[in-house]
Amino acid sequence: MMNYSLGKGSYKDWLLAETAFSADALGKSEAVMLLGNGYMGLRSDNEEPYLAERRNLFINGTFNKAEANEVTELPNAANVTRLDIRVDGERFSLELGETNDYIKQLNMKDAELTRSFDWTSPKGKTLRFRFSRFVSFDELHLIAMKMEVESLSHDVALSIDSGINAQMTNSGVQHFKEGERRIADGRFIQLVQTTNESAIDFVHNTVHALKLNGEKITAQADKDMARRKAWMSYDIELRPHDHLVVEKLSTVHTSKDSDLNSGTYSLEQLRAESLGQLKGHDVLGYDALFEVHRRAWQQKVWGAYNVEVESSEAVDQLALRFSLYHLTAMMPAHDEQMGIGAKALSGEGYKGHSFWDTEIFILPFFILSNPQAAKSLLTYRYHGLAGARKKAQDNGYRGAMYPWEMAWPTDGEVTPVWGDIDIVTGEQTKIWSGFIEQHISADIAFAVYQYENITGDRQFMERCGYEMVFETAKFWASRLEWNDAHRQYHINHVIGPDEYKEHINNNAFTNHMAYFNLKLAMRYADKLSQEHTELWETFGLEADYADWREKAERLYLPEPRAEDLVIPQDDTYLQLTEIDLAKYKNQTKVRTIYRDYNAEQINGIQVTKQADTLLLFYLIDQTFLRGDRRFSEAAKKANFRYYEARTLHDSSLSLATHAIMASDIGERELAYKLFRQTCDIDMGPDMKTSDEGIHAASIGGIWKSAVFGFAGVRLADGKLRINPRLPKNWQRLRFTVYWQGQPLQLDMTHESMDIEASAGRPVEFETGGTVYTVDRRLNIPLNHQQSLSST
Amino acid sequence: MMNYSLGKGSYKDWLLAETAFSADALGKSEAVMLLGNGYMGLRSDNEEPYLAERRNLFINGTFNKAEANEVTELPNAANVTRLDIRVDGERFSLELGETNDYIKQLNMKDAELTRSFDWTSPKGKTLRFRFSRFVSFDELHLIAMKMEVESLSHDVALSIDSGINAQMTNSGVQHFKEGERRIADGRFIQLVQTTNESAIDFVHNTVHALKLNGEKITAQADKDMARRKAWMSYDIELRPHDHLVVEKLSTVHTSKDSDLNSGTYSLEQLRAESLGQLKGHDVLGYDALFEVHRRAWQQKVWGAYNVEVESSEAVDQLALRFSLYHLTAMMPAHDEQMGIGAKALSGEGYKGHSFWDTEIFILPFFILSNPQAAKSLLTYRYHGLAGARKKAQDNGYRGAMYPWEMAWPTDGEVTPVWGDIDIVTGEQTKIWSGFIEQHISADIAFAVYQYENITGDRQFMERCGYEMVFETAKFWASRLEWNDAHRQYHINHVIGPDEYKEHINNNAFTNHMAYFNLKLAMRYADKLSQEHTELWETFGLEADYADWREKAERLYLPEPRAEDLVIPQDDTYLQLTEIDLAKYKNQTKVRTIYRDYNAEQINGIQVTKQADTLLLFYLIDQTFLRGDRRFSEAAKKANFRYYEARTLHDSSLSLATHAIMASDIGERELAYKLFRQTCDIDMGPDMKTSDEGIHAASIGGIWKSAVFGFAGVRLADGKLRINPRLPKNWQRLRFTVYWQGQPLQLDMTHESMDIEASAGRPVEFETGGTVYTVDRRLNIPLNHQQSLSST
Repeated sequence: MMNYSLGKGSYKDWLLAETAFSADALGKSEAVMLLGNGYMGLRSDNEEPYLAERRNLFINGTFNKAEANEVTELPNAANVTRLDIRVDGERFSLELGETNDYIKQLNMKDAELTRSFDWTSPKGKTLRFRFSRFVSFDELHLIAMKMEVESLSHDVALSIDSGINAQMTNSGVQHFKEGERRIADGRFIQLVQTTNESAIDFVHNTVHALKLNGEKITAQADKDMARRKAWMSYDIELRPHDHLVVEKLSTVHTSKDSDLNSGTYSLEQLRAESLGQLKGHDVLGYDALFEVHRRAWQQKVWGAYNVEVESSEAVDQLALRFSLYHLTAMMPAHDEQMGIGAKALSGEGYKGHSFWDTEIFILPFFILSNPQAAKSLLTYRYHGLAGARKKAQDNGYRGAMYPWEMAWPTDGEVTPVWGDIDIVTGEQTKIWSGFIEQHISADIAFAVYQYENITGDRQFMERCGYEMVFETAKFWASRLEWNDAHRQYHINHVIGPDEYKEHINNNAFTNHMAYFNLKLAMRYADKLSQEHTELWETFGLEADYADWREKAERLYLPEPRAEDLVIPQDDTYLQLTEIDLAKYKNQTKVRTIYRDYNAEQINGIQVTKQADTLLLFYLIDQTFLRGDRRFSEAAKKANFRYYEARTLHDSSLSLATHAIMASDIGERELAYKLFRQTCDIDMGPDMKTSDEGIHAASIGGIWKSAVFGFAGVRLADGKLRINPRLPKNWQRLRFTVYWQGQPLQLDMTHESMDIEASAGRPVEFETGGTVYTVDRRLNIPLNHQQSLSST
Repeated sequence: MMNYSLGKGSYKDWLLAETAFSADALGKSEAVMLLGNGYMGLRSDNEEPYLAERRNLFINGTFNKAEANEVTELPNAANVTRLDIRVDGERFSLELGETNDYIKQLNMKDAELTRSFDWTSPKGKTLRFRFSRFVSFDELHLIAMKMEVESLSHDVALSIDSGINAQMTNSGVQHFKEGERRIADGRFIQLVQTTNESAIDFVHNTVHALKLNGEKITAQADKDMARRKAWMSYDIELRPHDHLVVEKLSTVHTSKDSDLNSGTYSLEQLRAESLGQLKGHDVLGYDALFEVHRRAWQQKVWGAYNVEVESSEAVDQLALRFSLYHLTAMMPAHDEQMGIGAKALSGEGYKGHSFWDTEIFILPFFILSNPQAAKSLLTYRYHGLAGARKKAQDNGYRGAMYPWEMAWPTDGEVTPVWGDIDIVTGEQTKIWSGFIEQHISADIAFAVYQYENITGDRQFMERCGYEMVFETAKFWASRLEWNDAHRQYHINHVIGPDEYKEHINNNAFTNHMAYFNLKLAMRYADKLSQEHTELWETFGLEADYADWREKAERLYLPEPRAEDLVIPQDDTYLQLTEIDLAKYKNQTKVRTIYRDYNAEQINGIQVTKQADTLLLFYLIDQTFLRGDRRFSEAAKKANFRYYEARTLHDSSLSLATHAIMASDIGERELAYKLFRQTCDIDMGPDMKTSDEGIHAASIGGIWKSAVFGFAGVRLADGKLRINPRLPKNWQRLRFTVYWQGQPLQLDMTHESMDIEASAGRPVEFETGGTVYTVDRRLNIPLNHQQSLSST
């Protein structure tokens, strides 16, 4: 059973805890209690092994394509967390014997995992165990573990096998060639392995230190090796109340490490340096290393971008910290060649690939909270232009057609082409997303715009941003199809955000976003022609500009229907059959509709998997197109009501958008409900949802729901709006956003809003239709009525 | 706890049983209770999973080299034996709840594995389980399983997940590219995978059939898929005393199947045909398929070459059946391109590679019991000439230098070049066997001679045998090194059978066997020049013959020392330090000497790993060189006493040879003790010895100890000798051997021997120094004294 919080004292609302062990529900705590630092992600598997465990260690950017018929993915690196423990010869396992006072918890404040309990072996010996673990935020290569054991009653013979195990696979797929293993100074185990296609060297080091009753001991240790494994076997006799501490410090380095890219790389040097690093850590030990790690989290994370909520529900504060915790753990701030996968570094799901999830659901947090990190993520996409250009060319288009799934920037499209077999017909199902889910290119252009608009970072624009927007605009211009009957450009045969519908024509989201992409390119081109003629020349935009204008003018943009202001999701959606969706709207598991209808039937029903047209409203609202009459307040409300009723939220990307939209249109209770559902995707009581990894996009969505939704922050066309609409049970919300490089501290209640511009540069913003300027600090009383009204 | 026998009634002495379950000792029953038919070997893992299990299915000949830095090995094929069973939601596992009346047993008569017990779940529901399984001896591709469940007390909700799992690896090494999966007719699961280097297609099919109280039921079944997996999920409600039967029939076919080699191979056709085959099996069901399988074992195995012992120790009869059982299960009688690995098809150990184990320890059984199978094994070596010639050439020699480890015949040498790292120095240890353990070539020449001598199979000789002997002789002639000081040819820098000694000069075994090989080639050449001049011409032996003669005459052959008749094992052995070996001679585990001495120190001690010089005596005794005064009866005794005292039997290849030699020289009690130790290598109480697989050579050694040792059968230079020396506690021994194509039935007690030539052709043989001729049947009284004396 997962509990939201068990906080006491200073750690109140910082703890995510599991108070009962179940060998049938290991995936939950493994994923939601993940430890990570952007360089690596380590699932919080238990030290002692269980059949259903998924031990994963992923190192960002180390993609490998194991076989010609596989797609590239993050390989599961060698494991150091497993300890094989025996008590008087009996295997230690919580499935055996009796366990009391069990608690496994992630302390998000310190980013430390602990697990403690009393365990009585089948033979009746009782021991007290406490395990601690962290992945250092200060030393990116370090995994530190500590085990404390005390025998409560008897003399006990304890044996521990611990080392490095490189027999790990990705569900049976082995990515590594076996390399050398060594044991230096009789203690420091080193294991090398190399990915079989991308030829990335991994160097793993590990060392143990044992203390008995505070004194270092040199236990009887056998060294042993097997294929792809090396380990130590310790035998220790414990008398009652002896206190044994086993510390295990491990490092992992790879030849992709960016600190190595300068200079000439040599495996021998990496081996020597990484071993030297571990020897340094060994001198310090767990506790001292932890103190440095803890301070790094305090300083770089909680001191920098905490969000504080006063709510009647403690889970709300916890969920926002959960969001910030995971957003931090997943962010590869150390390397602009790396992105964030759909499951971040927390599971094999989606193979470590980046989707539009990053730009639309995760990046906004970084743009507003850590612009440097946001720039790194966008630079990853800039490096991806090579792959995007290749994809465009392969498909007969111009410019940059971004891959639906992206791995190493130059890989291009890495979406698997074939999915599971239709188990009835025996035919393999084709995965169409890599071919026709094309809105990703416009989504990235939107992200560039959003970044530029909020940060004002000209340097990035000149180095990367303009090129990304021009190249995606070129793609769209070449992609549009002339429809002679309608005398319009159409975009046929696509998948929109609603993946229930394949091979549709004129998906409103896709068409409008393509239009935005073209208009954005023209806007930037105008800017260059006025301010940077040398860049205008460099890009050679003359012909393209004319092309964009002609295409944009004649591109078909689905309009709100006269009768009810509903924008058709695509050419046929509004003509499809309607069924009673109540059963599926109330589902506790996703995809229940598939129990009654197959994919083909669903294609013919007015049912939507996830925010599609509504997402368009949400995005356009942040652009210079927001004044367009198509996206009027009335249309927004009409479309929300129409599509929310037809949306099953069968994607983790959906709920947060609907929460924000519900908040925007004043549906406060629904907004809060959708927010809580967003939190529950990973933190909720369903023990199976996170088995394949956490949902990076919905974790970004938790933060977005609060800041864009309840706080009503919206940034468009150089203008800042803040229209708070706190949920009824929230008394106060405090957080910081960066606007044009300056942190703004916001502190809002139902009654008033306090805004502070730390750097003291004046900022203009709009609240409740009134424009204010904050110089250093400003308090604005909020008309309760107004705080509920729409923008 | 493994018991030798628990036989009752007609299955007395046919059962190998385990009467208590231990999750810490799974490897024992998995390996010693292996099911196999020469085409495949299936470890007898338990249906429900355990952490320490090793699920293995090996298909003979399907070698694959997964990565450039690996050696080729038999890949672990997809698994069908695992069933994930839940009782009222609780995982079924013998580690949980309570188990009563447990017994797991291999019925060797019917080659069927069964397992039964009553299990009470942690929640207190008691069920009776019975599992049965066989690998068909009639349908080589078929694995049949049956599970019977009865709820003894309560209503129970049973769920079973079962299918095909291709996530299997060889200790982390994945050999397969993922292929297609299909489910035909909603029931027949098909999974295809292909080895990543050798490009061998594997087609797995599986189907389930359920019966409740005798009636076929169509249970609620979900079909599910994951990466490299496909399975069915059954949910069944059992009332008290409902009797559920789940039958699971599976097939495996590969593109290496010899029945496919004719005609054009197509994967689609193999898929269709294999599915058709399974549909046929499905119509028959487990019981009918079992009956056909049982009869095949009765007819082809027990009716053909049973060995019957009347002994005070029931285990002796059981051990001989154990030997015949495994020799049958490992023999790839269906394909002469395939050999027998050191662990046969029972584990990952030695990677499925063939060593001299086959020719010296396994082949004799087949030559005397199933000459057709023996010919197939030798033909495998004949096909291996290509690889052996390549190895000779690579090493600068002529003729055929057989690989120390052989996989697919044309692969050549496949011994790993690098072994585990010396964990202290960090250096990788080089495995020298592939370079300098060269006696294998002479061992194979010996095997050809033994086969020819016993079977008189001229056709094989003309097609294969002569060429193998000539080519190996050419190798030796080119390999000898002229020593100018001694005016002799030497063989320096080798490893003999005693692998404790590396890089030695003039290993007596190697030199004498090389000499035998040269002399054998000359003998066959003489024969051809007289009887088959056309073959003499074809082989063009003129120059080689002269070379062989010159080399053989001047090859240094270590002589018995004048003072004690001991032949020096190599140039330095007799000068090495002597230590008290009592501690290691009495070891219960192998390699205990390594706890006190390292490899370099052992190299300097008069200690021998395994039969070396004594093996030479045993082999020469079966050749035309046996009259050589070096191998006198006195020398044999002297060398036995000298080397037996210094041999630690740290190889499973050692004990049987010493048992035979002890029997030969009249050391009856020691002979019997060594025989029992030979049996215990796999059948004994040490639960860890067989984890990596059974020991194919020592299993051949069990039979050899009885027939060559206790029955005193020896066949040399066209002459048959039979000098029985039954152990004191054996009253009677009956068995059949083939001599020149005719079966001879032998039935011996301490008092007399009955010999019957079934085909009625007269056979001359020698017993106790007297020559007899048996026409149809003959009874010879044995002087008890004589039966104890030596030849």
